[in-house]
Amino acid sequence: MNIKQYMQEMGQKARLASRAIAKADTGLKNKALLATADALDAARPILAAENEKDLANGRNNGLDSALLDRLALTPKVIDTMIEGLRQVAALPDPIGEITDMNFRPSGIQLGKMRVPLGVIGIIYESRPNVTVEAASLCLKSGNAVILRGGSEAIHSNQAIARCIAQGLAAADLPAATVQVVETTDRAAVGELITMPEFVDVIVPRGGKGLIERVSKDASVPVIKHLDGICHVYIDDQADLDKAVKIAVNAKTHRYGTCNTMETLLVAESVAAKVLPLLAEEYTAKGVELRGCEKTRAILADAIPATEEDWSTEYLAPILAIKVVSSADEAIDHINDFGSHHTDAIVTENYTLARRFLAEVDSSSVMINASTRFADGFEYGLGAEIGISTDKIHARGPVGLEGLTSRKYVVFGDGHIRD
Amino acid sequence: MNIKQYMQEMGQKARLASRAIAKADTGLKNKALLATADALDAARPILAAENEKDLANGRNNGLDSALLDRLALTPKVIDTMIEGLRQVAALPDPIGEITDMNFRPSGIQLGKMRVPLGVIGIIYESRPNVTVEAASLCLKSGNAVILRGGSEAIHSNQAIARCIAQGLAAADLPAATVQVVETTDRAAVGELITMPEFVDVIVPRGGKGLIERVSKDASVPVIKHLDGICHVYIDDQADLDKAVKIAVNAKTHRYGTCNTMETLLVAESVAAKVLPLLAEEYTAKGVELRGCEKTRAILADAIPATEEDWSTEYLAPILAIKVVSSADEAIDHINDFGSHHTDAIVTENYTLARRFLAEVDSSSVMINASTRFADGFEYGLGAEIGISTDKIHARGPVGLEGLTSRKYVVFGDGHIRD
Repeated sequence: MNIKQYMQEMGQKARLASRAIAKADTGLKNKALLATADALDAARPILAAENEKDLANGRNNGLDSALLDRLALTPKVIDTMIEGLRQVAALPDPIGEITDMNFRPSGIQLGKMRVPLGVIGIIYESRPNVTVEAASLCLKSGNAVILRGGSEAIHSNQAIARCIAQGLAAADLPAATVQVVETTDRAAVGELITMPEFVDVIVPRGGKGLIERVSKDASVPVIKHLDGICHVYIDDQADLDKAVKIAVNAKTHRYGTCNTMETLLVAESVAAKVLPLLAEEYTAKGVELRGCEKTRAILADAIPATEEDWSTEYLAPILAIKVVSSADEAIDHINDFGSHHTDAIVTENYTLARRFLAEVDSSSVMINASTRFADGFEYGLGAEIGISTDKIHARGPVGLEGLTSRKYVVFGDGHIRD
Repeated sequence: MNIKQYMQEMGQKARLASRAIAKADTGLKNKALLATADALDAARPILAAENEKDLANGRNNGLDSALLDRLALTPKVIDTMIEGLRQVAALPDPIGEITDMNFRPSGIQLGKMRVPLGVIGIIYESRPNVTVEAASLCLKSGNAVILRGGSEAIHSNQAIARCIAQGLAAADLPAATVQVVETTDRAAVGELITMPEFVDVIVPRGGKGLIERVSKDASVPVIKHLDGICHVYIDDQADLDKAVKIAVNAKTHRYGTCNTMETLLVAESVAAKVLPLLAEEYTAKGVELRGCEKTRAILADAIPATEEDWSTEYLAPILAIKVVSSADEAIDHINDFGSHHTDAIVTENYTLARRFLAEVDSSSVMINASTRFADGFEYGLGAEIGISTDKIHARGPVGLEGLTSRKYVVFGDGHIRD
């Protein structure tokens, strides 16, 4: 069987399973999730052995230590997977919710019902725990899913898939609700993203390269997350204590996350006061500072920033700093150079705070809070399949709701149109 | 200037204008809409003259009478455009609405704010009144728009565009908020749908061929409407009076609309009773009946239906009829052969009605009501940019809300993440 046939068959099975899982009740879905958690717990020795095969292959193929780390199914990673399944089971079921029920002048009663999308395709890279996270969110939201993990994690992913299959069987749900692609052939991805008859939406999780490739070639909608070039703007009416706390937290709480600040904007009239305070903290934490000319007039040690710095996601202890002459310049800079992910203002000015909220075109816009809060768990979504930088459908952190759609439902009593 | 440069420049202007219109207050947007209505009213002689140029060209180029009809800006069509503008001005402004405001355990206050998408590209065919309809919805929802109408309506569209420009000027809004592509070169469409830096979403309005072409080649999201293969299922527990009323209305109220029934499904145990009643009404209205074998055993005059009939959108006085042995078969048939647009059941059975609502995967699912109700005006959206057969973002009739997005807003007081 060639790859095309293999993927088509998988797609057909997923489409069929999607109808069963769409109508499965909440209790059954939770039963499958909890039984998967138990199966993972029982399979620890097998998971370790299968993961060791991937790690050994990785070492032989010269994978770097960061990649090997992400590949490792340590006991702690397994604990987190189990805990995650239990948390998803505890979340409210989004499916079937009916809202906006109203009678129309014609006499029909109209509402909107939340329903699954159908079949989700997930494409991800080395971390095998994504297999469980993604499967659990798709299952709870009533979707079938086809998972295509990185080839370097193939043994781990298949071992996890067998645990999920046990969980589905325990709840009498179709095995094809969660399918893991078993070939490492790259052509499988090309097929998965071009089967609109079987797959309703694709969620790529991984580096920007993967996401751009998938978006370019997909013939179905893609929920994507590109860069996080996040800003904090310290206004001339900022409370400087808050400003320092927030700007330090947004940059240094974690360096590798997409909601980490990459560029700091500072109002000219407070720059001389606040930048030295900040520089002291950043320098103590080993953050490299790159500044515009006005910044360097205050912080002599800062490296000159180039135009490229304004549109770079460092994911590292590096910060670009720009002094701006007005809030307008700050807002324009964010809209021009940012990635529409998460941006914050620090100000005590009511009117400007309202303007910043309305005019900054990002998936999360914040007043007097650290950009690091832009996260599915912090937002109370319970879990997160990713953070969308798209504007349509899901925007910002995507939880169960982002894997659903709302259809219209009409209740009549023999009503016809005049 | 070549087409690429021309479209890029238009895109740049639209992007800039989108920031101004995004923050324009409701009063200004309404002022522009009402001033456009007045400008159209004052321009009736000019509109007639420019439209006559298009009609003359159309006649010379041998356009058929249906196409010439759609092209004609009769006084009645102009009245409708003016009335439409006033209705859109009277609609509530969706922009800025904040919902779901809650405090999170971290202390931040989280909400979701409705905001414009940014720049919308609309591609449509012969009807020049779409220029006003689409522009008014985009403007009210705070978006800039680039309109690309059919080349056969170019003079009419430009005359309408000048009225819109007057309306925008009266409210001091940027002229580039609404731009009409002035070249009839087809390459302009190719450019418009591949400028993600300037255009956020494309809405094609027209025949299936246009929509498929645009969807295939676009590099930005497309809100699309493909076929409407709608069903009515008459259950064995249907009230047959309601069934006849609904099945007649769904087919014969209008033949050319996407929410018209194309296939009728009838439960076997009531077929012998209800089909002759229906056939009498359909025959009186000149509807051609095509039936499965069981249908033809009851209605001897029906033409044999082929497999192709189940997936054909006739848009004509033709109806396919299938007798089914169970509600399951009806639901499966709808999900397999329908276009996920609008489907209705006629039944008095509570349990089955609930099942049909949950299991039929269509943008509108109805109980005891005619499919003809699936319409933006009937649903109270006030206006409609189209009916989406997509599952993500907007599904079903798309009004102002479908042209917006929701971003997260976070209110803090110096909050940082631990």
